[in-house]
Amino acid sequence: MNILVTNDDGINSAGIYALVMALKEIGNVIVMAPLGEQSAVGHALTVSLPLRVTEFHKDGDFFGFAVSGTPADCVKLALRTFLAEKDLPIPDIVVSGINHGRNTAVNVIYSGTVSAATEATVLDVPAFAISLTSYHPKADFSVAANFAKRFAPYVVKSGLPKGTLLNVNIPACKEDELEGISYTRQGKSYWDDMFERRLDPQERPYYWLKGHYILEDKDEDIDDIAIRQNKISISPIHYDLTNYEFLDEMRKGWKKDF
Amino acid sequence: MNILVTNDDGINSAGIYALVMALKEIGNVIVMAPLGEQSAVGHALTVSLPLRVTEFHKDGDFFGFAVSGTPADCVKLALRTFLAEKDLPIPDIVVSGINHGRNTAVNVIYSGTVSAATEATVLDVPAFAISLTSYHPKADFSVAANFAKRFAPYVVKSGLPKGTLLNVNIPACKEDELEGISYTRQGKSYWDDMFERRLDPQERPYYWLKGHYILEDKDEDIDDIAIRQNKISISPIHYDLTNYEFLDEMRKGWKKDF
Repeated sequence: MNILVTNDDGINSAGIYALVMALKEIGNVIVMAPLGEQSAVGHALTVSLPLRVTEFHKDGDFFGFAVSGTPADCVKLALRTFLAEKDLPIPDIVVSGINHGRNTAVNVIYSGTVSAATEATVLDVPAFAISLTSYHPKADFSVAANFAKRFAPYVVKSGLPKGTLLNVNIPACKEDELEGISYTRQGKSYWDDMFERRLDPQERPYYWLKGHYILEDKDEDIDDIAIRQNKISISPIHYDLTNYEFLDEMRKGWKKDF
Repeated sequence: MNILVTNDDGINSAGIYALVMALKEIGNVIVMAPLGEQSAVGHALTVSLPLRVTEFHKDGDFFGFAVSGTPADCVKLALRTFLAEKDLPIPDIVVSGINHGRNTAVNVIYSGTVSAATEATVLDVPAFAISLTSYHPKADFSVAANFAKRFAPYVVKSGLPKGTLLNVNIPACKEDELEGISYTRQGKSYWDDMFERRLDPQERPYYWLKGHYILEDKDEDIDDIAIRQNKISISPIHYDLTNYEFLDEMRKGWKKDF
């Protein structure tokens, strides 16, 4: 099995290292990931600037291609140009992560980790994003990495519908505390956030985003609730954003000329 | 009516100028838009850096706040902090555009213009994105601007479901060539794109994205098809990305333990 791995925390982060070490046990892993941290970049693509690719080595056993761009750039560059140019195989699956922090509910639209997997789906390669629900600086990625190793072959074998990817979130618990899998929908939890106004040394104002996450949902089948119950949350998501129900209403009730 | 206007082409672009001039005829317009071009940034938020706000004047009749960030930053900063700090009114609607180029089909996930409107929706303010299907350097934004002026009060009056925004695309034709409105779904057209490998003056390689857009759809109710028929395309979109149909299948057929 050929696996392309990327992330949004950057190629030098602990999450991608743990993921690559685990996936190497089951397949041929190629890494193409952002040189620097790219959290909350969403589905950004770099169009006004060119991209640079540099080789990246770590600890003797980790090798990858570092890209001066976003997670979606990495996947598009790999699948559309770079792998073929280097005579590297087209992957059977793209795995994005392990993100340091949850990607549930509204976070999905901000997440570079999820967007990398979405870009793979746009380019017709099955993909999942995987995130660990912990912001601890020394978070243990081993439970998530081990799950990715068991899950990736199953996804390849089962297949995914065109345009659909999987968003996996792992609770921050030990392996023997896991309560199984839950196939979930994206929840409605949100950020209660604002910008803190500060003054720089020249007394000029600047604004910095801060906030805390509000757990809004209660239903068992919601991503954040599954995690809270120590279950691994797996949500199938797609990028057909049409609200079909409201489209129907508009067609019936809204004006046709303005 | 209080209207917040933003865009992704930057505060100094022709599209936002035309939009603001038109909307000023029907309401109190506040502009908060990126200082520089932010095309294809998707739903990026700036979290690792602070934001700066500067006042921007143009031609004596255009005033706005320029932000050193993304379109989603502009909307979040305005709605969560800046407007209140300056004793400015909370808007009745957020209008994002006029984008220089279409935002249909897969472009929706890359679009900073759409993401700004999505961020307004996340923060419970009705919103629409508006884009002109023209890449001509001297594109005429007047048809789009006039439509925005007629449409904004109707959206405020009609209301939108929680979590849903409108993605409006205007054909590049004259006012009297318009063939009316079509309430559409997001199509499946895509980019046949790749990265061109070049060498810099030091003979080092770099990669630059290029591509052309493939019109995939044929059905009348698709965004790109409506535009081709000189209709204004209006798609209701939301950010619940769950693929409910496949979620059902997974619950029935996929393994529950790994």
